[in-house]
Amino acid sequence: MDFKSKYKLNFNKKQNFLCVGLDPDMDRIPENYHKNENPIKNFCLDIIEKTHQLAVAYKPNLAFFESSGLKGYMALEETCQAVLESGALLIIDAKRGDIGNTASHYAKAVFEGLKGDAVTLSPYMGWDSIEPFADYKEKASFILGLTSNPSAHDFETLDMANGKKLYETVLETIKKWQAANPFLGAVIGATQESELVKLKEAVKEMPLLVPGVGAQGGSLEAVVKNLHQDNMLLINSSRGIIYADDPKKAAEKIAGEMKKLL
Amino acid sequence: MDFKSKYKLNFNKKQNFLCVGLDPDMDRIPENYHKNENPIKNFCLDIIEKTHQLAVAYKPNLAFFESSGLKGYMALEETCQAVLESGALLIIDAKRGDIGNTASHYAKAVFEGLKGDAVTLSPYMGWDSIEPFADYKEKASFILGLTSNPSAHDFETLDMANGKKLYETVLETIKKWQAANPFLGAVIGATQESELVKLKEAVKEMPLLVPGVGAQGGSLEAVVKNLHQDNMLLINSSRGIIYADDPKKAAEKIAGEMKKLL
Repeated sequence: MDFKSKYKLNFNKKQNFLCVGLDPDMDRIPENYHKNENPIKNFCLDIIEKTHQLAVAYKPNLAFFESSGLKGYMALEETCQAVLESGALLIIDAKRGDIGNTASHYAKAVFEGLKGDAVTLSPYMGWDSIEPFADYKEKASFILGLTSNPSAHDFETLDMANGKKLYETVLETIKKWQAANPFLGAVIGATQESELVKLKEAVKEMPLLVPGVGAQGGSLEAVVKNLHQDNMLLINSSRGIIYADDPKKAAEKIAGEMKKLL
Repeated sequence: MDFKSKYKLNFNKKQNFLCVGLDPDMDRIPENYHKNENPIKNFCLDIIEKTHQLAVAYKPNLAFFESSGLKGYMALEETCQAVLESGALLIIDAKRGDIGNTASHYAKAVFEGLKGDAVTLSPYMGWDSIEPFADYKEKASFILGLTSNPSAHDFETLDMANGKKLYETVLETIKKWQAANPFLGAVIGATQESELVKLKEAVKEMPLLVPGVGAQGGSLEAVVKNLHQDNMLLINSSRGIIYADDPKKAAEKIAGEMKKLL
């Protein structure tokens, strides 16, 4: 099933945009998991078990698995499998970006090895670093556009000679790249409503992954109002759900807020 | 030992700048390795065995290991260990780029897990994505500046409102970031001598990783002439050595050419 069909299936059933970010930090995983042989694995499987009736997508962030070495790798494989079995979309948050032959290997790792429905990518090296992912016609790629971290201003929001900002140029370029694969989309940080209004046209009909709602301070209402109608929209929440005292309740709360905005 | 000391030790002993890129592609690894239980591992260990008296550094590219899943991960661990035991610098070619807490986990994976002496990083998200790596004061980071692939022109060479190109702005910014860690450096593709001359000042006293000599068509002489004196220079060759009929001879040839230019 291609990305759009699987997105629609999940959206129609769950009526929200919730992507649960799986950032299993050994220092923050509750103590009861540490008795297990592989705390990261057990923690992630438990989060999926508790939230899969609500979440449209899960987004394991590879850094948190890679930092635990071999055990982390094994936890990642089982986590991805559990997401796929739940029927939710599997977004591999990898932010990879390398050229041709190398990029093909990263694409193989995320789309064939982990069987992700989508991946996050960095745009810096240009089309050579995107094409091998785009060649998987049923899969989506969320390319970094405007991110929600403070130092996004170091480069992303710099003014270009063409009168646009760098991230606007990246978004325009993604739009052109969509000729090769309509599921090429963007990561857009949701920190300011004024920016979201400006972006509405630029990202029309793109898959969009929006982090930064919740812990990072973005406004849910502004994101949904501006970006919902024409996009395959996913709004990510990581820490606010997975480290809540009751992750299921936390997911119900945010999913409920999203539903109200439809 | 910090990056500079280990670099000098290797350079003084070997009198070249050779970084051997370990891109173990299952489709290109010679047939005799495929009888082994883990061809990638055996191939990499063999290359290191054959070339470690010449190579100043090795650069395993994570994509080629990740695409083989668990076996690839185990091959990567043993490959990194073999590089460290040889005394050469271990450059983890990961091109990671993610924010604060996530970047800390990537840094832990490459500097503590794999015990790399250096890593490659993407600049797009700015300082937040570099700082956790810079916090490892003895380690180096090669940040993508100007790469040698054709689509480097999609973004890297675009003109900025400040009159510079994007990659020049990135290099200037790395220079500022060096206040936090002098071993923050750049990846500079070596395709045109005119560009190298221009870059000489911008990259002064930076660790530099130069791919693109050999298979990708860059000129060795131009790189050494322009970038050697003031830098910790590493010139990478991957396919030209590891897939040569005789990898040792191929490494001797390129190391010899480098030595002549000193």
